[in-house]
Amino acid sequence: MHSQLHQNSKSDAQAEKILTGDRATGQLHLGHYVGSLQQRAKLQHQYEQTILVADLQGLTDNGNNPHKVSSNILNVVADYLAVGIDPLKTTICLQSAIPALAELTMYYSNLVSVARLQRNPTVKNEIASKSFGSSIPTGFLMYPISQAADITAFKATLIPVGDDQLPMIEQTNEIVRKLNSIAQDEILVECRPLLSKVPRLPSTDGKSKMSKSMGNCILLSSSEKDISKAVKSMYTDPNHLRIEDPGQVEGNIVFTYLDAFHSDLNYVNDLKQKYKEGGLGDGTTKKILEECLQEILRPVRERRETFISDKAQLIEILQKGSEKSQDESSQVLKDVKNAFGLNLFQ
Amino acid sequence: MHSQLHQNSKSDAQAEKILTGDRATGQLHLGHYVGSLQQRAKLQHQYEQTILVADLQGLTDNGNNPHKVSSNILNVVADYLAVGIDPLKTTICLQSAIPALAELTMYYSNLVSVARLQRNPTVKNEIASKSFGSSIPTGFLMYPISQAADITAFKATLIPVGDDQLPMIEQTNEIVRKLNSIAQDEILVECRPLLSKVPRLPSTDGKSKMSKSMGNCILLSSSEKDISKAVKSMYTDPNHLRIEDPGQVEGNIVFTYLDAFHSDLNYVNDLKQKYKEGGLGDGTTKKILEECLQEILRPVRERRETFISDKAQLIEILQKGSEKSQDESSQVLKDVKNAFGLNLFQ
Repeated sequence: MHSQLHQNSKSDAQAEKILTGDRATGQLHLGHYVGSLQQRAKLQHQYEQTILVADLQGLTDNGNNPHKVSSNILNVVADYLAVGIDPLKTTICLQSAIPALAELTMYYSNLVSVARLQRNPTVKNEIASKSFGSSIPTGFLMYPISQAADITAFKATLIPVGDDQLPMIEQTNEIVRKLNSIAQDEILVECRPLLSKVPRLPSTDGKSKMSKSMGNCILLSSSEKDISKAVKSMYTDPNHLRIEDPGQVEGNIVFTYLDAFHSDLNYVNDLKQKYKEGGLGDGTTKKILEECLQEILRPVRERRETFISDKAQLIEILQKGSEKSQDESSQVLKDVKNAFGLNLFQ
Repeated sequence: MHSQLHQNSKSDAQAEKILTGDRATGQLHLGHYVGSLQQRAKLQHQYEQTILVADLQGLTDNGNNPHKVSSNILNVVADYLAVGIDPLKTTICLQSAIPALAELTMYYSNLVSVARLQRNPTVKNEIASKSFGSSIPTGFLMYPISQAADITAFKATLIPVGDDQLPMIEQTNEIVRKLNSIAQDEILVECRPLLSKVPRLPSTDGKSKMSKSMGNCILLSSSEKDISKAVKSMYTDPNHLRIEDPGQVEGNIVFTYLDAFHSDLNYVNDLKQKYKEGGLGDGTTKKILEECLQEILRPVRERRETFISDKAQLIEILQKGSEKSQDESSQVLKDVKNAFGLNLFQ
């Protein structure tokens, strides 16, 4: 009985398909590492997984600065490989190299009203946080449709997201239901969120969003010296002036990072206790954190250096993954075109 | 000297490239015949010409009724051939069979703001005339971007349009200039309108827009009987009750059609004079118009019947034209992707 249950759950897991990815607008950092990369490196053993390097989506708010996107595509692929994402287990592909995704976006755009996009909470928040003024690029407004194309093109069922991305899943499933109703057949598959349990990692200054140009984040490629510098300048408790004073743990970025990265949480809890009581200096906690981060990032950085030095290999991995993905998504596109009766040449 | 001038103007003409087309949402009618089809049959001897059967654009306001589009694709191709558009001289292609057009649309959508689309007078008027309510499909709002993709994909320089379509040309050229500025190179070509001198042909009831379902238009495929019926029910002068009464020519659809279709305009002017003076009955003018229309449409209908009965040939023509067009537009897409720095696999 137990064995049968086990088999069932294994076959269920195999039937699940994960789609995830990153906008190619910068190198990946520790926020990505704890938020998604580690998870992906594990999930690839359990599920069929596709990771999309979303260069087209990156362009939706960088149309006038495309270099920010094009210069980071291989960086992101190297980041993936460095954390142990294995191209033999995970399909890594490039959005702009998969024409079927653009075609699906065009079909779906007829099924979603402008008002519906403008109501999307994720898009609303992102528009508010950017400096578009009244000039929101059309591509940006419609990126939920493009994302629905990405998800459905791979018949993905599980989408790793944070809370803030749940409206994107709902938008995708609305399109799936509309399309299936037009097709009078279950040609597209609804997806579910795989909610991340990890809270978003704050920037080292504890204030703004992580950004390389702000110098408030630690990249997977950061040098030993940069890591050291970043930890030393980390935001702690501004009222903790002398070692013997009691310190505050909440909002203290050093402890937030220790929680996220230290392997021994009992040890971290003891540190917190001591810090609150007084007698533990920021120099010491920072030293402990730095050692921990250096240990985690040293092998990642070294692997990354090897990968980034062989651009031809990165391109080959991306090209193979993109070709496989175009084959896969062409099948879905064919079904969608069929639903619209567009099958003259088939 | 004269000969040299002549040569120059010929070589200029050859350098021009025409893109035109129709939404595949219905069979073509007499309005198309005088408004565009006759012109295209002439232009193909003078210019390189591509005609796009715009099925994707047809879907932008028929997402929930795709059969209206899919069932009319071959009808439109048969209409083209019936009026003498020659697939050896004119490339006839299908929008949905050219993935590069969808891809170009995605790139351009990052260069056009939502506000800019909403200000487009053509789109504004069309939205007002349709019953979208507050649910304008995203695909419909962005169809000027899709049209810019169509035009630029073929490096078209001359676009046959009516006055009401001039904003679409301006929108296209804005995209061309933005893209060229990003590329720092003249990779896309600006286009000019080829303004039609023919006023829009009214419907037979003189009121609403021509539509097959309203029964107020004469199709290229209309039977002899249908043409006769349509002319007999045509709107004339409602106050012209007795033959001997003076009649009104303005707004009299029979005379509008005689102006558009009769080969002898002096004769039509004499008829008008007599009608205004009194003594010419609507039965007579309608008989003259019917004879004229029957004569024009008989060979068109017969040719059309031959073409529509060989669907495989129509599909082959469309497929060949679409393959040629995909080759052509792939080159432009490559240039555009290059402008955005996306050329890893080239």
